[in-house]
Amino acid sequence: MAKKYIDIPTLKFQLYNVHDLQSILSSDYFGEHDEETINLFLESIKDFSDQELYPVFTEMDTQPAYFKDGQIMVHPVVGTVMKKGGEMGIIASPVAMEHGGLQLPLAVHTTAYAIMEAANNHLLGYPGLTLGSAELILSFGSDELKETYCPRMLSGEWAGTMCLTEPQAGSSLSDVATTASPQADGSYKIKGQKIFISGGDHQFSDNFVHLVLARIDGAPAGTKGISLFVVPKNRIKDDGSLEFNDVITAGDFQKMGQRGYCTAHLIFGESDDCRGWLVGEPHRGLKYMFQMMNGARIAVGRGAAAIAMAAYHASLEYANERPQGRKIGGSGKKDATSEQTLIVNHPDVRRMLLLQKALSEGGMSIVMQGAHYHDKMASATDPKEKEKYHLLLEMMTPIVKTFPSEKGITSTNNGVQVLGGYGFCSEYILQQYLRDMRIFAIYEGTTGIQSLDLLGRKMMMQGGKGAHLLAQEINATIMAATAYDELKPYAKELGVNLKRIAEVMEYLGAFAQKGDFERFLSDATVFMDFMGTIVGGWQWLKMATAAKEALVMGNTTYDAVFYESKIHTMKFYFKYEMQKTPGMAEILTDDEVLTVAKGEEVIV
Amino acid sequence: MAKKYIDIPTLKFQLYNVHDLQSILSSDYFGEHDEETINLFLESIKDFSDQELYPVFTEMDTQPAYFKDGQIMVHPVVGTVMKKGGEMGIIASPVAMEHGGLQLPLAVHTTAYAIMEAANNHLLGYPGLTLGSAELILSFGSDELKETYCPRMLSGEWAGTMCLTEPQAGSSLSDVATTASPQADGSYKIKGQKIFISGGDHQFSDNFVHLVLARIDGAPAGTKGISLFVVPKNRIKDDGSLEFNDVITAGDFQKMGQRGYCTAHLIFGESDDCRGWLVGEPHRGLKYMFQMMNGARIAVGRGAAAIAMAAYHASLEYANERPQGRKIGGSGKKDATSEQTLIVNHPDVRRMLLLQKALSEGGMSIVMQGAHYHDKMASATDPKEKEKYHLLLEMMTPIVKTFPSEKGITSTNNGVQVLGGYGFCSEYILQQYLRDMRIFAIYEGTTGIQSLDLLGRKMMMQGGKGAHLLAQEINATIMAATAYDELKPYAKELGVNLKRIAEVMEYLGAFAQKGDFERFLSDATVFMDFMGTIVGGWQWLKMATAAKEALVMGNTTYDAVFYESKIHTMKFYFKYEMQKTPGMAEILTDDEVLTVAKGEEVIV
Repeated sequence: MAKKYIDIPTLKFQLYNVHDLQSILSSDYFGEHDEETINLFLESIKDFSDQELYPVFTEMDTQPAYFKDGQIMVHPVVGTVMKKGGEMGIIASPVAMEHGGLQLPLAVHTTAYAIMEAANNHLLGYPGLTLGSAELILSFGSDELKETYCPRMLSGEWAGTMCLTEPQAGSSLSDVATTASPQADGSYKIKGQKIFISGGDHQFSDNFVHLVLARIDGAPAGTKGISLFVVPKNRIKDDGSLEFNDVITAGDFQKMGQRGYCTAHLIFGESDDCRGWLVGEPHRGLKYMFQMMNGARIAVGRGAAAIAMAAYHASLEYANERPQGRKIGGSGKKDATSEQTLIVNHPDVRRMLLLQKALSEGGMSIVMQGAHYHDKMASATDPKEKEKYHLLLEMMTPIVKTFPSEKGITSTNNGVQVLGGYGFCSEYILQQYLRDMRIFAIYEGTTGIQSLDLLGRKMMMQGGKGAHLLAQEINATIMAATAYDELKPYAKELGVNLKRIAEVMEYLGAFAQKGDFERFLSDATVFMDFMGTIVGGWQWLKMATAAKEALVMGNTTYDAVFYESKIHTMKFYFKYEMQKTPGMAEILTDDEVLTVAKGEEVIV
Repeated sequence: MAKKYIDIPTLKFQLYNVHDLQSILSSDYFGEHDEETINLFLESIKDFSDQELYPVFTEMDTQPAYFKDGQIMVHPVVGTVMKKGGEMGIIASPVAMEHGGLQLPLAVHTTAYAIMEAANNHLLGYPGLTLGSAELILSFGSDELKETYCPRMLSGEWAGTMCLTEPQAGSSLSDVATTASPQADGSYKIKGQKIFISGGDHQFSDNFVHLVLARIDGAPAGTKGISLFVVPKNRIKDDGSLEFNDVITAGDFQKMGQRGYCTAHLIFGESDDCRGWLVGEPHRGLKYMFQMMNGARIAVGRGAAAIAMAAYHASLEYANERPQGRKIGGSGKKDATSEQTLIVNHPDVRRMLLLQKALSEGGMSIVMQGAHYHDKMASATDPKEKEKYHLLLEMMTPIVKTFPSEKGITSTNNGVQVLGGYGFCSEYILQQYLRDMRIFAIYEGTTGIQSLDLLGRKMMMQGGKGAHLLAQEINATIMAATAYDELKPYAKELGVNLKRIAEVMEYLGAFAQKGDFERFLSDATVFMDFMGTIVGGWQWLKMATAAKEALVMGNTTYDAVFYESKIHTMKFYFKYEMQKTPGMAEILTDDEVLTVAKGEEVIV
């Protein structure tokens, strides 16, 4: 394993300089915190990661979670994380103080989790989903549900999960078939199977609080008939003791990566004795669940960015230590009697490393931008402001989820290549990062689903208001960058790309207006790549502007090489990544339709 | 596992219709064979693959090769492949009849191996490297070496390997440090370590014939001082019995994929008793070894294309069987009460499947094009013809190696995505294909090395003669396609791309002329992607033209849907892949230099 898995200055630069945490901390809602306390919190997280999480990272891969005698067994560190997670506030960090949380900005929570996930990405789903399910109960549950479950979840005593997927209902949630039959005492009998339940069962939690999508008897078909239930593995008797609630762990899924993060197959009500409690109103379950899903989507993007950054540092460390070959001299010949050079000095290796840096830190900045909008929304007192940031967060969420996940594959794949043959060997960590990374483009709505959401829903919502607000935000960065001669050409190119988005939307929008929605959305994934690439350029220009400003103002928080490296990587991103947008726009505005099925099978 | 792992009609279409095997069979050298005998050979290969190779494919991954008590243990099927490989002519198929081979065209050998590798890619390196080392001895070895080793290698009794890499000499072969000290009897004492030796040791061969690069005492530094030796694991005593030759297996490498294909760490001469026999003249070893390396590079491209095709069929099968969601109706709404549709009907899934088909079959066609040039060269009687096809093969080799390997990652990665969550699960085969695929861009010279070869050597050789010949070949396809209205726009676009290559070379060539070779080559990998994408377009146009011709001529070897699917996939390739070439040309002709190290470290 590499000595370094995360660059704390880069994270702090993003948190404070690029994404202006100060403007969040100056709000009433987050006003209890200041830079000093936040830095102390982040330091404790880094120490915890160094001491507990990183040392067992490869172990969790080589000794994966497994199913035995009706239970899933996981690495002991899972117990540590849940326990310390409660003590350190890892689970409760963004929760309101009135509910026992730290009421930290999501940007800080995101930074903390990114540190831990860079150290060991197999672990953070356990506290993360526990947090998400507790938040869901806090938002929509009855006082009784809140009191019964949330304190013990936030303390790490009990774990939480989200149960959506069924064997016949993966991306298509409208086909959820788990049933809920009303009982005289106000509870519901739950019956059904859920698969791919992350953290769904293990030996280190006394209870699992499953948040389950199910259909109340007689509910309408489709998503309109889905309700949300709290279904604990063990129900709480009147005397406070626990009683088995007929939630059976039927097995687990063995995977190519994230092998320490267990994935359960759960059966609810096999003995007809599984009780669930309705959250909020009937038939509104999917709407509620979207709160948790949106949170999880941001978490997925964050996790992917964290892995990509860790992989970058591992590749960079190797490149800085491995001598191989010689630099090409002026004659085009290499002098075989001279010392070998370090591979970091070969342009192609530098290209791969810069690509890793550009995509991983760029991905992280996209996630932080989403977290910033969340915090702006959460702390806004003016309803219009709240709505503005709500729309911006809605716009960003599919990109926050997808860019780090998809570009994370590209960057980590390049990270393997930096090591040559060693990159493929189990002895080196790069191959594990690559295997772990592969799930993120599938989690919480695949890239295809996110792309439909971005183009079909988010770009169109409120007559394009979200898209308009996002363009304004990007324009503000263009304006700020234009103050510096060095950045002007890139600001200009970003502006050209804003126009390009408008042109593409004009072309595609015509299909939506004609009612040809299948055609409108047929290249949604290409549109996602197109938008994501431009948003990545926006973030890099924003980072470069912050760096340039620091250099010009003589800000010495970090040294000049640090700031220069951000500007250099921005240039790299614009040269090697932004060049792709005209080609993608061509695909998106091409009249030829090749992927819409017309009945005849021509794929073969 | 999927029911189907390869489409034989597609391979035969490429062999006969696209790459004109008839023109090869009409030569004197290959004249012993005809379509009927070749088809029988391919059928026997397919049966063998169905019965012996495919059934153990996942087993070889879950029960990988391992090192124990000084030896590597592999799956028993390795023994079967070596034995049957001898009997069926799998090892000797392209070898001249005078040496006991079948003297089959490389195009046929390539087709046969692609079938077997699509069935099980962990196996073919064993006979493949045995063939390659036997061929190397046949080309450059003394009669005594030939007689001693080759018959028993071609029969599968003994295995062959290539030993290049050392711990300190990976991509940089000029740093090979293994020594060879001349002995009175004409042999050499060999001393050194070799790593990453594929098929380097296992329990199913009585002997291993290692072809080892080493430096004779006093040899000059660099590649000019490297000689080639036959170093058997067991040397042959005068009475014909075997005696240990001090070649120790020190360990193996555990890997993320191809886990059934063992990778050895060998130590030669630890007890100062390892003998080697010089092949050819001293100090010319690297030149000789390039014969085997070039063969291996074609084999690597072939293996990658085979895996990508197998992954395509596995994804397609899943997509044709998995119901999920509904097609988007005219209203933009989905009717949740209707039956779910098969996912093959979703445009985004079709896009991914077509991408898999375009990149995998396109990759295979590039490999077949290389094999065709090899056969033209081998069968040419006119020295000028021979030289022409030699140059074309030289041009194609780095692309044959790289396109299927790099695009194979992209296509197989999309193949995983087609399956959603199941794609990540060990229970489904896609994740294994993805893991297996990852090594191909590293084997036999990484993509970076191939790219330097393409731009720095092949594009420039004989004043650009190879590049000129390749352009002529591509132009011939453009001319042929132009006969059909449906293909004209694509032919035109390919022509535009030929000009684009010329423009890029004019820009880059200026740096070479100025002597700034580092800058000339700094974006070689981008150039490889650029050239490979265009060569892929060339191959697809060639396939579409052959298909169109068959449709127009009423050729009913395959049905109309088969031919239409090739034309459809060509259009897909041009829309989604060829659109990338202008952006890549922009990168290649961009004045901004960001990856050439200038002493200061700005990567951080």
